[in-house]
Amino acid sequence: MPSRYLSFRCSVPWLILLLQTLFLLCSFFGFHRQTPALGDIYSPSSFYPEFQDVNHMVIFGFGFFLMVLRRYGFSSTGFNFLLIVLGVQCSVLMENLLVFLRVQQNEVGMKSLAKAVVSTTAVVISTGAVLGKANPVQLIVMTLVELIIFYVSRCINRTVLQVPQQLSLMHVHLFGAYFGLAVASRFPEPPPGLDKNRSTPKSELFSMLGTVFVWVFWPSFNSILADSKEEAVLNTYFALAVSAVAAFMLSALTSKDGKFRMAHVHGAVLAGGVTLSYTAGSIQQPWIAMILGLLASGVASLGSHCLQRCLNPALKLQDTSGVHFTFGLPAVLGAVATVVLGVVEEGINTQWNNLSSLGYLIFVNLGAFCQTISTALITGLITGLILNIKLLKAVHVSKYFDDQFYWEVSCKIISG
Amino acid sequence: MPSRYLSFRCSVPWLILLLQTLFLLCSFFGFHRQTPALGDIYSPSSFYPEFQDVNHMVIFGFGFFLMVLRRYGFSSTGFNFLLIVLGVQCSVLMENLLVFLRVQQNEVGMKSLAKAVVSTTAVVISTGAVLGKANPVQLIVMTLVELIIFYVSRCINRTVLQVPQQLSLMHVHLFGAYFGLAVASRFPEPPPGLDKNRSTPKSELFSMLGTVFVWVFWPSFNSILADSKEEAVLNTYFALAVSAVAAFMLSALTSKDGKFRMAHVHGAVLAGGVTLSYTAGSIQQPWIAMILGLLASGVASLGSHCLQRCLNPALKLQDTSGVHFTFGLPAVLGAVATVVLGVVEEGINTQWNNLSSLGYLIFVNLGAFCQTISTALITGLITGLILNIKLLKAVHVSKYFDDQFYWEVSCKIISG
Amino acid sequence: MPSRYLSFRCSVPWLILLLQTLFLLCSFFGFHRQTPALGDIYSPSSFYPEFQDVNHMVIFGFGFFLMVLRRYGFSSTGFNFLLIVLGVQCSVLMENLLVFLRVQQNEVGMKSLAKAVVSTTAVVISTGAVLGKANPVQLIVMTLVELIIFYVSRCINRTVLQVPQQLSLMHVHLFGAYFGLAVASRFPEPPPGLDKNRSTPKSELFSMLGTVFVWVFWPSFNSILADSKEEAVLNTYFALAVSAVAAFMLSALTSKDGKFRMAHVHGAVLAGGVTLSYTAGSIQQPWIAMILGLLASGVASLGSHCLQRCLNPALKLQDTSGVHFTFGLPAVLGAVATVVLGVVEEGINTQWNNLSSLGYLIFVNLGAFCQTISTALITGLITGLILNIKLLKAVHVSKYFDDQFYWEVSCKIISG
Repeated sequence: MPSRYLSFRCSVPWLILLLQTLFLLCSFFGFHRQTPALGDIYSPSSFYPEFQDVNHMVIFGFGFFLMVLRRYGFSSTGFNFLLIVLGVQCSVLMENLLVFLRVQQNEVGMKSLAKAVVSTTAVVISTGAVLGKANPVQLIVMTLVELIIFYVSRCINRTVLQVPQQLSLMHVHLFGAYFGLAVASRFPEPPPGLDKNRSTPKSELFSMLGTVFVWVFWPSFNSILADSKEEAVLNTYFALAVSAVAAFMLSALTSKDGKFRMAHVHGAVLAGGVTLSYTAGSIQQPWIAMILGLLASGVASLGSHCLQRCLNPALKLQDTSGVHFTFGLPAVLGAVATVVLGVVEEGINTQWNNLSSLGYLIFVNLGAFCQTISTALITGLITGLILNIKLLKAVHVSKYFDDQFYWEVSCKIISG
Repeated sequence: MPSRYLSFRCSVPWLILLLQTLFLLCSFFGFHRQTPALGDIYSPSSFYPEFQDVNHMVIFGFGFFLMVLRRYGFSSTGFNFLLIVLGVQCSVLMENLLVFLRVQQNEVGMKSLAKAVVSTTAVVISTGAVLGKANPVQLIVMTLVELIIFYVSRCINRTVLQVPQQLSLMHVHLFGAYFGLAVASRFPEPPPGLDKNRSTPKSELFSMLGTVFVWVFWPSFNSILADSKEEAVLNTYFALAVSAVAAFMLSALTSKDGKFRMAHVHGAVLAGGVTLSYTAGSIQQPWIAMILGLLASGVASLGSHCLQRCLNPALKLQDTSGVHFTFGLPAVLGAVATVVLGVVEEGINTQWNNLSSLGYLIFVNLGAFCQTISTALITGLITGLILNIKLLKAVHVSKYFDDQFYWEVSCKIISG
Repeated sequence: MPSRYLSFRCSVPWLILLLQTLFLLCSFFGFHRQTPALGDIYSPSSFYPEFQDVNHMVIFGFGFFLMVLRRYGFSSTGFNFLLIVLGVQCSVLMENLLVFLRVQQNEVGMKSLAKAVVSTTAVVISTGAVLGKANPVQLIVMTLVELIIFYVSRCINRTVLQVPQQLSLMHVHLFGAYFGLAVASRFPEPPPGLDKNRSTPKSELFSMLGTVFVWVFWPSFNSILADSKEEAVLNTYFALAVSAVAAFMLSALTSKDGKFRMAHVHGAVLAGGVTLSYTAGSIQQPWIAMILGLLASGVASLGSHCLQRCLNPALKLQDTSGVHFTFGLPAVLGAVATVVLGVVEEGINTQWNNLSSLGYLIFVNLGAFCQTISTALITGLITGLILNIKLLKAVHVSKYFDDQFYWEVSCKIISG
């Protein structure tokens, strides 16, 4: 038994080496930097701060956001970091492949990198669902499969349904959450008596730290690829503010004796930003963004309340860090809001005369939504099955949620 | 008795809901986004990084800056976050009201939001003075009252005394500190034997983390609304550097055996930035900024030494996180420095001939200073009295400084 | 004995006061702000975000990066902060002296400050080598001596060898690492049984937090003074990503049973950025940057493995936070890579006909490298000897690595 685990661990570095060599070869043969066209609107100086914010948020913010488990701090931040640096390289290669296949236009380096970092967010979200259960080999395989499928799904959206690029990229939360849930459903359940998947005040504080980080940088995330940056920032900010207020309110309402609960707060605080990801640049009045933020926070809070009691046990869903209600449900709400707002705007513009264009709008948006979510669920299930074959040597449930299984922890357990 | 506390807690979410509905209605009826004028100097791309810095600093930096108490970490960061997201919405509405009343010009969205975030700093500073004593209901009421009075005080400064907008906004530290002190003086004193208001090494380390964050982003805070941004950044940086050096020096000088003391250091490190807030953009030579930084740090350090021994017991002042010497005294110094520097510059320009213009300058600046500080003290006292009426159900002193009273803390106390 | 330590501590504030007065006087007499020339390419708005990133990274990131020791958290962050604020002031004065001596052109304020912050990184790196052994007096003296010698070394590089400014400044890692190692070699060894220089999971987590911070902001560090900013950012990002991947891989390969080890990871993760510091702006193809990142990580990881077993005991080197393999070896690799890449590019351009220009290129680059490293080692040794004379009252080895010797720690030791 120990030798089997030993051999699994010894396979990790070779897998990483293989991947890195592959990336190097691909970039050597296929990835030539084009000189940017003159007069490009994204000059580095105007684009760099937002990129840096998103990069910071994904690596640092999400790393701490995932630190909810009391004995899994090293793995949460460490593996998140590893998966992102692998994922970004993979995404950049996929971007270049798409350019090579003429599916999309060539873009200057920085924008391509920014899109790669945004795409990698899907992996981070999915990791949250299998947090503590998947070993590094499984996580790395999941990262690659997920990114490739996400690019395929985006291609379908863009070529078949003619969805604009910014919108197709913002399906990242939806895709990440449902892919992660589907993968997590194929993992064996932890035994009920296990207390390693509890959180301590200290781990909750770190997780809150990460959440606040992500919250602060979310306007950059939503505006990085938007055309009207200022509106995207303002709308996202207001939606986030309202959803933070609502998160505190709902946390006090749903708890037993009116106390706040960190776990509730930090799940619903971000909901407004996720919901606004599709429409941040196109909403004209701040009160619409604020109402969306309120609804998103409500969906996330009440979703967390109901899901954990009813749906999750029924479907045997295990969602370690609550990605379903933090990212999944608000993204669904955002997709619905896109359709409604688009129809209303189009309707007002055409004075409700051009019903065929309305129908087309609904068809395209709903089509992209359904295509993304079904692709995520189906391929997630398949990936989950693949990850649990014997070859990849799944972790025994008794070893779940434990840093010591992967890290040389010097003397004491990292806990509260 | 418990039921009374229970009922208090149950009133928190409804108060928040009421406020949020109010904000939504106001923004629905009154708050229409104007299209920015062509050729506006604050294009989003040049303005956004500073805004993001200030936002990050206020939410994240101050959240951890306030984490000095050993059992109050959740509340320090959590309530700070809640008050800011409520305060920013309230401030944006006040800004729009002022535009509607034609007190000030309309401004593009981002600048209006930046001013709202800067104004909210007053609330954060005041919170530091009543940290651990006020319950969420009291804090929320204080936030709203304080922001409205601060806007009124700014209006008086601008319309009656013709103080420029940037200067009137930078009274935020002065106003916040003395308003907070006045409010805090109306709260019952904690019993002398209470040890929950001590700090532990861990809470001091987190607080240091927050202080360094605030320190790093302070140049953005001082330059965000300044006309000559580069000079504002450089002067603030030098003043901050000198006041950090002086903070270490004075900490070692004032302690018993030459050891440094974290609490001293982190109170005086920011003093230079606070002092420079009025004059950062107009100082021509760096050595003036450096001397101001040195004086500010001296005032803060020695102030902390004397105040805590003499003044505070005499006036029964309770200032949990030392906002009086961290923000109050350096802001007073800054206001004095504004007058002196303004008079010297004006005197040199007019070769000391035009005494009436000098007198007018002194009158305006001192008038704005006295108006701000007296408004802060008087309304702070009144607010403190209102907050301690029975309706708002003040916390019993035995429940001060305790997270467990407001948060569902899972199993162990969050402490060092 | 205690009185001697007492007197040592009491000398710290006076030394700081003396220095600060000196800085103030110098800046009063010599440091007049020139109005920037018209049409300067570094307008503040385009330059400020990168400056802020570097400032944030040096103060916050490195402060936590150095928090590896379990009882030395206050000192690691606190002294790092103190040395930087002193060092930046000293650097700005040196910059102005160089302008006064007409060694370099005058530059607008912000760029001068940015160069000062970058230069101060040398001090931070050296501090890592003597972490826990040097007292504040020794650290402050070291800071001043090191910065002055670094400026002299840069002047030699620029005036004698005609090395471009950006390249001469990027010798900062090389200089800092070897200067620090030479200084550290003159300190008495800690007794073998001492356990205060171990790390705990908590201190490792904080250190990882700092490393990730530094990692995220490294592209800003490499691009802040580069001419082609976008290429510098992209190349640095790819090199960092590959070296992070390789760090995980090599950590698992070199540990006993395939587990990851935080100390390995956080030493090698940054290697790619250090190596790219010379060539980030001039590499044309990303795969070159990726290969350099891979090599850098390999050098750092294997270096750490071999050095700690073989070289360090032989040479009696003590390198508390591993600056030799984190910054020293990757910088050497970077310097070699500069020569090789420069020769290849020049060779292809001239079709290998103009051997004399090739020879000159090699001579200049190798000359600058050898001059820097030998200056660092020789002056570092001398500085180390000076620091250990009786006047500066070195700390007794039994007091190494202990916060309580310098800080008033309230009740409990800060440890895991």
